[in-house]
Amino acid sequence: MGRFHREVHEEQVEMSGGSRCCFSLLTLLAEVLLFGSVALVVAWCLKYRGGFAWTEDPNLQFNLHPVLMVSGFIFFAGHAMLTYRQWRCCNHSTIKLVHTLYHIMAIPCIAVGLIAVFDFHNNKKPTPIPNLYSLHSWMGLVTVGLYGLQVLPAFIVGFFSFLFLLCCDTATASFRAALVPVHSSFGITTFFLAVATCLTGLTEKVLFTIRDTYSSMPDEGLVVNALGCTLVAALVVISVITSQNVFRQSRAHGGIATEL
Amino acid sequence: MGRFHREVHEEQVEMSGGSRCCFSLLTLLAEVLLFGSVALVVAWCLKYRGGFAWTEDPNLQFNLHPVLMVSGFIFFAGHAMLTYRQWRCCNHSTIKLVHTLYHIMAIPCIAVGLIAVFDFHNNKKPTPIPNLYSLHSWMGLVTVGLYGLQVLPAFIVGFFSFLFLLCCDTATASFRAALVPVHSSFGITTFFLAVATCLTGLTEKVLFTIRDTYSSMPDEGLVVNALGCTLVAALVVISVITSQNVFRQSRAHGGIATEL
Repeated sequence: MGRFHREVHEEQVEMSGGSRCCFSLLTLLAEVLLFGSVALVVAWCLKYRGGFAWTEDPNLQFNLHPVLMVSGFIFFAGHAMLTYRQWRCCNHSTIKLVHTLYHIMAIPCIAVGLIAVFDFHNNKKPTPIPNLYSLHSWMGLVTVGLYGLQVLPAFIVGFFSFLFLLCCDTATASFRAALVPVHSSFGITTFFLAVATCLTGLTEKVLFTIRDTYSSMPDEGLVVNALGCTLVAALVVISVITSQNVFRQSRAHGGIATEL
Repeated sequence: MGRFHREVHEEQVEMSGGSRCCFSLLTLLAEVLLFGSVALVVAWCLKYRGGFAWTEDPNLQFNLHPVLMVSGFIFFAGHAMLTYRQWRCCNHSTIKLVHTLYHIMAIPCIAVGLIAVFDFHNNKKPTPIPNLYSLHSWMGLVTVGLYGLQVLPAFIVGFFSFLFLLCCDTATASFRAALVPVHSSFGITTFFLAVATCLTGLTEKVLFTIRDTYSSMPDEGLVVNALGCTLVAALVVISVITSQNVFRQSRAHGGIATEL
C-alpha cells in the first residue's frame, strides 16, 4: 500500500496550464500574506507598542504574545499546510519531513507566546490581571487544545512509522492513509480558530490601548486593521489552495497527501 | 443535462447506517447551535443591555444590530447552507426554493441590522461616533459585500432559469452546474467571515460596556463568551455537514447540489 502510494506520487499528473498559472499566483499571494502578517505584527509592536522584553517589563513582555502566536499559528502552521502543494517536486518522505519541521518551529513559538501572556497577567502591577476570562482566551484555549490533539498523535504515528519503516511499512500505510482526511479537516479547523482568535485578540488589545483615539483612525489603528485583514485573506487563500482538487492532481484517491 | 441531474437526484444513493446516524447527530447539533446562538444574543440584549428600540433611543437601537446580524448571517444563512443536505427527501426545485426563502429572510435582517448600527453611530449624543473605523467594521463591510456578490447573481441566474424554464432548461443547466462549486466555496467563506466578524463585534461591545468588570467573569461576560463559542461551534459543524462527501451520497459528480 505504501509503495503503491509512492508510485502514485511519482507518476503524479501534471496540472493544466491554466491551473498551474492560478496555483502559482495563489501560492505567491499566500506567501505575501504570510510574510506580510509577520511583518505587520512585528512593526506594530516595535513602532507603536515599545518593542520587546522578558519579565523585567510585563508590558513589553506582552508584545511577544501577538508576534509569537502569529509566527507559530499562522506563519509556520500555514506553511506546514501548504507543504503538500508547494513541494510537489520532492518525494513523499521529504514533503512529510518539511511539514514536520514547520510544526517543530511552530511549537516553541506557541509555547513561549503563551508563557509571555500568562507572565504579563501574573506580574502586572499594581494588581495581577486574571487569566482566561475573555472570549479571546477561551478561543485561544480551544485552539491550543485542538493543535495539541492534532500534532501529538501525528508525531507519535510518524515516529512509529519511521521506527518500523523496514518491517511493517505496508501494514501501517493503510492506517496512516485513513488518518489523512481527519488530520486535514482538523488542520483547517485549527487554522480557522487560530485566525479568529487573533482577530479577537487584536480587537481586545486595540481597545485596551488606543480606545479613545481608535475612531479617529490613527496610524496604529490602521496597522492593526490591516493585520486583521491580512490574516483573514491568508486563511481564505490557504483554504482554497489546500481544498481544491484541481491543485492536487494525482491519479489515485487522496492525491499526494495519502499518508501521515 | 438538467433532466439528467434530476434523475440522478431521484435515484440518490442511500447513506450507510453509520453515516446516517452521524449525519442525524450533526444536524441535530447544528440546529441546537443555530437556535442557541439566536437565544443567547436575544437574552443578552434583553437581560443585560436594556432591550430594543428604534431611533428614539440610540443605545437600545444598537441592540438590534447583534440580534439581526446573528439572525441573518448565522441563523438564516446557516439554514440556507444546510438545505441541500437536510431536505434530501424533496425534489431539487423544492430544495432550491427553500434555500432561496432562507436567503430572502436573511436579507432584511442584515439590511435593518446595518441601518441600526449606522443610526446608533450617527445619532449618538453628545457627539456622533465615526463609522467604519474598526477592524470589526472593515470585516463587516467585506462580509456584506461578499454576501451581496453571492446572492445577487444567484437570484438573477435563478430568476432567468425559472423564466425560461420551458424553452431552454437544458441550455442553462450546464452553465448553472458550473457555478455550483464557486457558489458553494463563496458561501462557506462568507459564513466564516460572518462568524469572525461577530466574534470581533462581541469583543468590541463587551469592552465598551463591561470593560472594568469583565475580568471578574460577571454573568454578562459568560453569556457573551458562550455566544462566541456557540457561533464557532456552529461554523465547524455546518462546515463538516456541507463539505464531507459522505453526507452528499449521490452517484454523479456534484451530488444533489448540481444546479443553481
